[in-house]
Amino acid sequence: MATQASRMMHLNLFLFGCGHHRAAWRHPNSSIERMGDIGYYEKLAQTAERGKLDAVFFADGHSVGDINENSLWYLEPITTLSAMSRATEKIGLITTISSTFYTPFHAARLLASLDHISKGRVGWNLVTSMFDAEARNHGYESMPAHADRYRRAEEFADVMIKLWDSWRDDAIKCDRQGQYADPGKVSPIDHNGEFFLVDGPLNVPRSTQGNPVLFQAGASDQGIALAAKCAEAIYAVAYDLPAAQDYYRKVNAAVKVAGRRPAPIMPGLVTYVAATEEEALAKQRELDELLPVASSLKQLGTFIEQDCTHWDLDAPVPALPSLEEFNGPKGRYGTILRIIETENPTLRQLLGRLAAGGGHCTMVGTPEHIADKMAHWFHHEGADGFNLMPPSLPNGIEDFVDQVIPILQQRGLFRTEYKGATLRDHLGLKRPDF
Amino acid sequence: MATQASRMMHLNLFLFGCGHHRAAWRHPNSSIERMGDIGYYEKLAQTAERGKLDAVFFADGHSVGDINENSLWYLEPITTLSAMSRATEKIGLITTISSTFYTPFHAARLLASLDHISKGRVGWNLVTSMFDAEARNHGYESMPAHADRYRRAEEFADVMIKLWDSWRDDAIKCDRQGQYADPGKVSPIDHNGEFFLVDGPLNVPRSTQGNPVLFQAGASDQGIALAAKCAEAIYAVAYDLPAAQDYYRKVNAAVKVAGRRPAPIMPGLVTYVAATEEEALAKQRELDELLPVASSLKQLGTFIEQDCTHWDLDAPVPALPSLEEFNGPKGRYGTILRIIETENPTLRQLLGRLAAGGGHCTMVGTPEHIADKMAHWFHHEGADGFNLMPPSLPNGIEDFVDQVIPILQQRGLFRTEYKGATLRDHLGLKRPDF
Repeated sequence: MATQASRMMHLNLFLFGCGHHRAAWRHPNSSIERMGDIGYYEKLAQTAERGKLDAVFFADGHSVGDINENSLWYLEPITTLSAMSRATEKIGLITTISSTFYTPFHAARLLASLDHISKGRVGWNLVTSMFDAEARNHGYESMPAHADRYRRAEEFADVMIKLWDSWRDDAIKCDRQGQYADPGKVSPIDHNGEFFLVDGPLNVPRSTQGNPVLFQAGASDQGIALAAKCAEAIYAVAYDLPAAQDYYRKVNAAVKVAGRRPAPIMPGLVTYVAATEEEALAKQRELDELLPVASSLKQLGTFIEQDCTHWDLDAPVPALPSLEEFNGPKGRYGTILRIIETENPTLRQLLGRLAAGGGHCTMVGTPEHIADKMAHWFHHEGADGFNLMPPSLPNGIEDFVDQVIPILQQRGLFRTEYKGATLRDHLGLKRPDF
Repeated sequence: MATQASRMMHLNLFLFGCGHHRAAWRHPNSSIERMGDIGYYEKLAQTAERGKLDAVFFADGHSVGDINENSLWYLEPITTLSAMSRATEKIGLITTISSTFYTPFHAARLLASLDHISKGRVGWNLVTSMFDAEARNHGYESMPAHADRYRRAEEFADVMIKLWDSWRDDAIKCDRQGQYADPGKVSPIDHNGEFFLVDGPLNVPRSTQGNPVLFQAGASDQGIALAAKCAEAIYAVAYDLPAAQDYYRKVNAAVKVAGRRPAPIMPGLVTYVAATEEEALAKQRELDELLPVASSLKQLGTFIEQDCTHWDLDAPVPALPSLEEFNGPKGRYGTILRIIETENPTLRQLLGRLAAGGGHCTMVGTPEHIADKMAHWFHHEGADGFNLMPPSLPNGIEDFVDQVIPILQQRGLFRTEYKGATLRDHLGLKRPDF
């Protein structure tokens, strides 16, 4: 990490449909008709680049969401980022890659090619995927066990890097009277592991960054172990500062044990920004009120395992059993208890909180207020930056770039200009020369 | 097919490194330093679009070529075409997809996404791949047998189309007060075949063209059977008109038996164009003279299974055993005999012919001469168009677009403007509505 004096935040824009609020697409001004229009995504990337953000980021999945619950579709990230790379010049471009479904040769080649095309701006978020519905689109009867997926992910990351390193940086000579490339500098990898047989070399030479930047977001013990072993940057889920600090310290301790330098940790962050707190709250309320109440109550009912369809929407949420007393899945339930405990929301507000970013942190208020809170996390072992999850797009990122970024810049917490040209440059990561 | 009066040629630009002549990269003006520069490919696509060509096309492979023989690397086609789609407006964009290495869900999704991004300009050339070196990059010990690969390819094409048809054209509603999509119009495919288990639906809705256009180039009996069954357009290899006619008639007979309408057949075509025949021949000679003689003679020696390193480069090629007498692989050997028989070339010229496009047709001369020959093939059951393989790039396609295209247009053999916006429109193929 840089010294405290010069330490700067890292900010990514997490792109998702019409925004991260589940009802954002219902807003009259939403871009819901443009989910397949590349111009929509190019403009978002340009806005993020205007704000000097480190990168834009796409999550990914391999099955349709629940059509009955109005899950939106989205373009495939790699093809989308390739087009977006030509509408921007500096901003990083991060896709999600499932090690459970891709062969490492395909993935290494697609990302290396994209790193050439974008002149060194590619990152990849290594995930193991979760759902049987995804597995059954790629030839599995059901999703492999968690432990098997993580062993595969670790081998996958290893093979990816071996493939990227199968051409030395100076392998290509372009000697018109002699050789195009030096055969001594292009080598097979001869990998034969538990999951993968890959001879190599890759059929793409080493790219601008050497290797695209490896992101990870594991929260389980195995996820944290994988992140400690190989992640160069980390996404996190933390509803509030204590949760963020807990994760931050746990990961950095694991990284230290692994003998590696700390990787920037970026929790997800939902923001509602406006000139006054009242206006910011009104923006939040406007989206929350677009939620179809019946299906939201039904969903909450499954999370808390009781019928809440008759509860008063504008009264505080009734007392719920403690985490110890609750017998269902505890992750989301714990977040719900935390929200009730810290915010005492009405039922309608609780539905909104769950609808925008799920368990991620939400900050609502003036640009100064949000900059203060972000700085507080940044200076108190909560975050090295944030993965911005605007509740609605494009306005959510425009608000942030126009109103919050200038304050962070004035305070010396965020860059006023890109210093380098690659994603590694933006993240302060050294190029792995080879 | 359209009536004879209005029948027009289809022309694709087959992109490959610095051009299809193996020594093109050695020319002082070659773009060999730009193999990873997306701007190089964008400009080539713009030139092809200026000539109103139907499409640009990339072949593909899954292993490095022979570094000792100066095989060039190239960007991965899908990522490259996505970027190129944003530098062009009308021209089609065709990638090669190996059914042996991709899962159909990945491939269907990448191509559907690209079809959305390009607004309906995508085609795919279905291949089964050939080399053990490729198989060993994707987990196989060696390449599956030819017959197995073709059974897999047929099932692959079937699953691709089922996935693309898993959303009906009118599935998306964007009803802000109601549903985003109609769940009754998004259906699983429940495919469980010999090679693939795929539940579906795809997580990308039906794209502009419905389905990207399926190209095929099979020359074996199984390849022709597959093309007859599912190809919407066909690439071919034919050294001269009799070979082209033989293939053309064979494929169209098979298509008729399959009860389908004929698909446009486009043989590969290498052209050297100039204002005079002498200049055109000089262009060809200039590239041929860049070939490193020793390695070309060594390669020829392996094709004909005898040592030819002591032969006179500027004398006619000595008599070779007949095809019947020859015991090695007969495909390339037959082409070599055909070249000697029809052109009586010097050894140096033979090496040049083999170095530019291999067994594909070569036409050398004035724009009028080349337009005449193309028209002759077009009117005599040799071709419905051509897959242009310029020996060097970018000049080879600039020459063709500036000099040959206007003549074809004047003769009413080629479009003067795009009539539609999709690749299906350019090829005269109906959109498969669903």
